[in-house]
Amino acid sequence: MSGDSIIWLDGVEVSSLPLPDRGLDFGDGLFETLLLRGGKPLFSQLHFARLQRGLHALSFPNCLAGVEQLLERASASIAVRQWEWCALRITVTRGAGPRGYAPPTDAVPRVIIMATPLGSAANEPADAAALGLAAIRWPSQPALAGLKHLNRLEQVLAAQECRSCGFDEAVMLDQTGSVVSVTAGNLFLVTAGTLLTPRLEVCGISGTRRELIMHRWAPALGLDVREGTIGIDQLTAADEVFYSNSLVGLRPVASFLERHWRCHDVCAALYLKYRDELA
Amino acid sequence: MSGDSIIWLDGVEVSSLPLPDRGLDFGDGLFETLLLRGGKPLFSQLHFARLQRGLHALSFPNCLAGVEQLLERASASIAVRQWEWCALRITVTRGAGPRGYAPPTDAVPRVIIMATPLGSAANEPADAAALGLAAIRWPSQPALAGLKHLNRLEQVLAAQECRSCGFDEAVMLDQTGSVVSVTAGNLFLVTAGTLLTPRLEVCGISGTRRELIMHRWAPALGLDVREGTIGIDQLTAADEVFYSNSLVGLRPVASFLERHWRCHDVCAALYLKYRDELA
Repeated sequence: MSGDSIIWLDGVEVSSLPLPDRGLDFGDGLFETLLLRGGKPLFSQLHFARLQRGLHALSFPNCLAGVEQLLERASASIAVRQWEWCALRITVTRGAGPRGYAPPTDAVPRVIIMATPLGSAANEPADAAALGLAAIRWPSQPALAGLKHLNRLEQVLAAQECRSCGFDEAVMLDQTGSVVSVTAGNLFLVTAGTLLTPRLEVCGISGTRRELIMHRWAPALGLDVREGTIGIDQLTAADEVFYSNSLVGLRPVASFLERHWRCHDVCAALYLKYRDELA
Repeated sequence: MSGDSIIWLDGVEVSSLPLPDRGLDFGDGLFETLLLRGGKPLFSQLHFARLQRGLHALSFPNCLAGVEQLLERASASIAVRQWEWCALRITVTRGAGPRGYAPPTDAVPRVIIMATPLGSAANEPADAAALGLAAIRWPSQPALAGLKHLNRLEQVLAAQECRSCGFDEAVMLDQTGSVVSVTAGNLFLVTAGTLLTPRLEVCGISGTRRELIMHRWAPALGLDVREGTIGIDQLTAADEVFYSNSLVGLRPVASFLERHWRCHDVCAALYLKYRDELA
């Protein structure tokens, strides 16, 4: 199933993970998905910053420097393989441990890096996406909101629903019915020239491209960005909608259920800013 | 780290798990922890019933019959080893899959069974426990409440807090501040001769021993049991408190922060019922 992928465990090429591992047992860990061009990781500092926040929130030993070194070694190996575009997942688990929820005080985190070549060029904009609405909602958990930890069942179930209904992606709501994201990306609405994106205080993942849009690319275009509580009605009423993630960058939204959009101008303008940085 | 444990993957003794696995990647799976005496799994039908509910909720292929067979084989192997008491964890993951949240439509679940001999006799009542209060709370997620899936970060973090504060266990609240459980067990309050246990509609795990207490052992003693929304004040005001899980059975609570209990009569009476069934 891993196809052309390469997997390293703590720097050693492997095809399996020693058991037990708390990442498997309890989802006790974190991950990042990076885009690489010619073996060079893009926007890695933003990924490391989020990973660092996660390590802190889970009280992991601070292993960030080790992760950075392992990424360098993996990148060098990918560069040799001449994969133009590559998705690279870094998973950090709390490693082995005895039975039970309590982590060992001397836990030794494990770093699993999996690199998968991408078939299509990541600097070509994706087709506009048809969005459905997932029945499963994000859990409410302010203490872990924004982090990319390994407890991702809701997104799995939403993606499963989405696929079975034939949509490209699905809008996910929080427990109160406000819009949070799609299953694998952050949502943006354009209304009267202003960008609006869901606040991520009780759930959701704080995306690296979301951060770049908010603090670099939108300001560069003179666009205001606000975070807010967004209802389904507001989504439907927006002039334009798009989402962002680390592999597609920004993707315009063609439709959400019965609502269709033809205008993707803001997304297209931001995409050019994004593409400049891929060069 | 696995010490004396034995691990089987789909019936084959192993020490590692092939990668990728969706159980590790997203917590896409379920588990059960059974108590075995002389190689015989206790109350296995209740564990299988909960596992079945989980398989259904996650839209897994129905692999329950296979899991039952694998448990039988593992049990036979444990019986030969003459481990009197043994903890056995069954983990069912959605197996391998390509990158991304969406599960493959042809997913082949994997069954990992890990058996660990227990040092102490499981039919001797545990000392009364000192409980703290975990700062981390259960996430609100009605769609998955009660199930024993692999997304267990909150319990890990609560157990970590608990250990660092020197308590035996920690009370965990839901997002609204109501009492749900301890990190690894269901709570029961005794008030004026009646049992009260937290309702598990938005979070928590529906324990097998909780079910036995509610529907078999308490009725056998003529005790009423109610499920309800329980505040911290109610917990503190109870005449007696205990918790249940699959390895200790029932364990009396000696204290919760500043509140101390000397009476453990109801717990002791229920424990005798429990012990009868271990014989």
